[in-house]
Amino acid sequence: MPAGGKADWLAGQLRQAIADGRLAVGDRLPPTRVLAAELRLSRGVVTEAYRRLAEDGHVEGRRRGGTVVVAAPHSVPAAPCAPEPPAPGAAHRAVPGALFAAEPDADVFDLLRAAPAHADFTPGRPALAAFPRAAWLRAERAVLAELSADQLGYGDPRGDLRLRRAVAGWLARNRGIRVRPEQVLIVAGTAQALTLLHPVLRGDGVDAVAVEDPGSLGSRQHLRHGGLATPPVPVDGDGVRVDALRATGARAVLLTPAHQFPTGVVTSGERRRDLLGWARDGGLILEDDYDAEHRYDRPPVPALRALTDRVCYLGSVSKLLAPALRTGWMVPPPQYLGPLTDAKRFTDLGNAVLPQLVLAHLMESGALERHLRLLRGRHRARRDAMIAALAEHLPGAVVHGAAAGLHLTVTYAADVPDTVLAAAALERGVKCQPLSWHRQRPGRPGLVLGYAATPPGVIAESVATLGTALRELAS
Amino acid sequence: MPAGGKADWLAGQLRQAIADGRLAVGDRLPPTRVLAAELRLSRGVVTEAYRRLAEDGHVEGRRRGGTVVVAAPHSVPAAPCAPEPPAPGAAHRAVPGALFAAEPDADVFDLLRAAPAHADFTPGRPALAAFPRAAWLRAERAVLAELSADQLGYGDPRGDLRLRRAVAGWLARNRGIRVRPEQVLIVAGTAQALTLLHPVLRGDGVDAVAVEDPGSLGSRQHLRHGGLATPPVPVDGDGVRVDALRATGARAVLLTPAHQFPTGVVTSGERRRDLLGWARDGGLILEDDYDAEHRYDRPPVPALRALTDRVCYLGSVSKLLAPALRTGWMVPPPQYLGPLTDAKRFTDLGNAVLPQLVLAHLMESGALERHLRLLRGRHRARRDAMIAALAEHLPGAVVHGAAAGLHLTVTYAADVPDTVLAAAALERGVKCQPLSWHRQRPGRPGLVLGYAATPPGVIAESVATLGTALRELAS
Repeated sequence: MPAGGKADWLAGQLRQAIADGRLAVGDRLPPTRVLAAELRLSRGVVTEAYRRLAEDGHVEGRRRGGTVVVAAPHSVPAAPCAPEPPAPGAAHRAVPGALFAAEPDADVFDLLRAAPAHADFTPGRPALAAFPRAAWLRAERAVLAELSADQLGYGDPRGDLRLRRAVAGWLARNRGIRVRPEQVLIVAGTAQALTLLHPVLRGDGVDAVAVEDPGSLGSRQHLRHGGLATPPVPVDGDGVRVDALRATGARAVLLTPAHQFPTGVVTSGERRRDLLGWARDGGLILEDDYDAEHRYDRPPVPALRALTDRVCYLGSVSKLLAPALRTGWMVPPPQYLGPLTDAKRFTDLGNAVLPQLVLAHLMESGALERHLRLLRGRHRARRDAMIAALAEHLPGAVVHGAAAGLHLTVTYAADVPDTVLAAAALERGVKCQPLSWHRQRPGRPGLVLGYAATPPGVIAESVATLGTALRELAS
Repeated sequence: MPAGGKADWLAGQLRQAIADGRLAVGDRLPPTRVLAAELRLSRGVVTEAYRRLAEDGHVEGRRRGGTVVVAAPHSVPAAPCAPEPPAPGAAHRAVPGALFAAEPDADVFDLLRAAPAHADFTPGRPALAAFPRAAWLRAERAVLAELSADQLGYGDPRGDLRLRRAVAGWLARNRGIRVRPEQVLIVAGTAQALTLLHPVLRGDGVDAVAVEDPGSLGSRQHLRHGGLATPPVPVDGDGVRVDALRATGARAVLLTPAHQFPTGVVTSGERRRDLLGWARDGGLILEDDYDAEHRYDRPPVPALRALTDRVCYLGSVSKLLAPALRTGWMVPPPQYLGPLTDAKRFTDLGNAVLPQLVLAHLMESGALERHLRLLRGRHRARRDAMIAALAEHLPGAVVHGAAAGLHLTVTYAADVPDTVLAAAALERGVKCQPLSWHRQRPGRPGLVLGYAATPPGVIAESVATLGTALRELAS
């Protein structure tokens, strides 16, 4: 990029930050020297960007007072399709790559989401362009037509009975779980399920929830925020190691048995039996069944909840339809149903009713199962494109966990920290998560690559970019 | 009702409880003697009801084992319009009237909602039959057409920027509050706003939130559940008494200044100045602006948040559109914005995006303001019907707070506890809340009567029922 182009880019970023309020009137811009160092730009580029904003009348130079914001751009376009600004903070936090420099904080996923990129391999999103908009609208029309006025009042904190019935049916057909609708709680996704569980677990004397290592950074952050310790338990080719789980002394464990996050290991039959034995001895399993319906080679293994009620089962539509729906469900052990209902009531009095009834329609009509079949075909093609591209562009890398789910993990031998690789990739417009984010103990570097939301062509060229970045860093 | 009719009714209630799982196969029904006493029915009626269920094959008599559920009715109709069953519990909890006998627990509003009734004067619901279904569906169609695939992924925990802009505009036009969209947090209603505030307040060293007395039972339960004490502050004809507030020593107070719940007092100008003085001295005001847009005689008073940022403002669409939407907003003091964003992220990663965008459409297009005008007319007619009916059927009663909002409060001189009156009313098919639920300290008995969701004809006949019940109890 020419220096003028960089100044243009930076001025644009700052203008946007002022327009959407991250920089308010009266705020002082960072000194040019500081910002230049942070962005790895020359100081001249920063000075030039500030000059352009001053010409526009957005900022004023005030000698010792520095450069200060004096007016926001006049029209802030509503632009529903524009990426949303990151959480409050100085403008330079949005700079690509910098977010991998520090220990990931609670807002790290917000920052990563807000970073601009050409390709987004963030795991956990299905093929969002395939969202069944027409079917959703048809179901919404039907719901609005048949809804009683009373249903628009305050509702059951456990969720609408119609959706709980539909979810019970879904779990029976797809996950082998046989429960009555009254055992199902509708929640705002798995993050909320964990929030509801924190006080219930602590009230039950549980002060630590063992977690898989590697295992989801987001879940670990969440449990710690809830005042629970998260002792790590190693994962091998059969799943989580139950001997190591016993050794932690923890009374509860958070698992992803159907498709371990992030390694993709499917828990073996023998390991499942070991886990059930641990549960019989008084252990509680939190089963995060986040993407189990997406299995490419054969039908998914049944959920652990199908085998014992010492399991608190967590599921959602985030990987079936869209994370933005914020809808999920829990099937807790019987003794937790009452306390979790109380927790849900205080948290939000229950999920909103319209989306619950729309989802119930899609489940009852078979539209959701049709959509899942469509997704499986689309995701399989994207997975194959990614495996082919990895073989071509990262020939020494090892692919893990590609038999199911929406992502795979790749490890590599080069002596390059994965945070450095992820930062370099983001600066080249490719967004992905370093494997080390999801580790508590040291291990091989790698990347977690969600492929489900990205078309095959973009996958191929972006994996090529990753290969280039890794070669340059390793040389 | 003839005895056979009572047995019919009870058998029907029990059949429903079995059908929807409140009574599961294997559960034991209460002994006939116990249930008869609880329901104030003769034992013969209960025995007859059990006999009918046995004939249907739903229960079996087992001598010392009592009467046990052996089979659920075959088809459980999906019946989207049927009232939802109450939270888990024995069948007799759903019996009208009994729920007023004990101290109200966390599930009391669920139990009251689940109780069958001909007329429902539960406060807090607008004219739900007027919900703008066609406008909602049109907006949903537009949202689905213009939504980007990226917007279906994980979003901003603070809420979609488009809705935050629309809410900022709404607050400026309707509540006199001038804030930037970045100062607005979208939440799942006021209950969730309080949930998010609990840890933030405790983290700020606040261990007590003073509350109005009388004041909302639900809010008080909520604060206590969050580990906060709730010292009572008396309300007089000008609003909450600031001298008494100072005397509590609490650093925060939860107020309903625009239309005090439940007394309906509008805070006077002088009292508002006193409150601002208290806030300037370091006090924090939680302003629950639950129904302020509904003022009948003149424009609403501006929110306290319009005058100082020592206020955490809480609003929602529950009284503008429908509680079932579970959508609200906060405008916190600046220093709480970051911690509340963190709390919202952990709680549910942010509200679902589709309803947010639909609501933004309705706000941008003016449809919500049109709906509010329609509601004001409809509610005023219902308020007038209720005042007329009270004058006719409860001639000695005093009406409070009818100048605004969706409910009024009536106090009466008769020596009848208001819980007894509310129980008698419910047994006659009229649902309302006793004023004593909302008191921490003793005071005159009364009823809180929401009129907004009930047609004038039903209001008239149901207030007549209240009058009859009160006369019978007082005689």
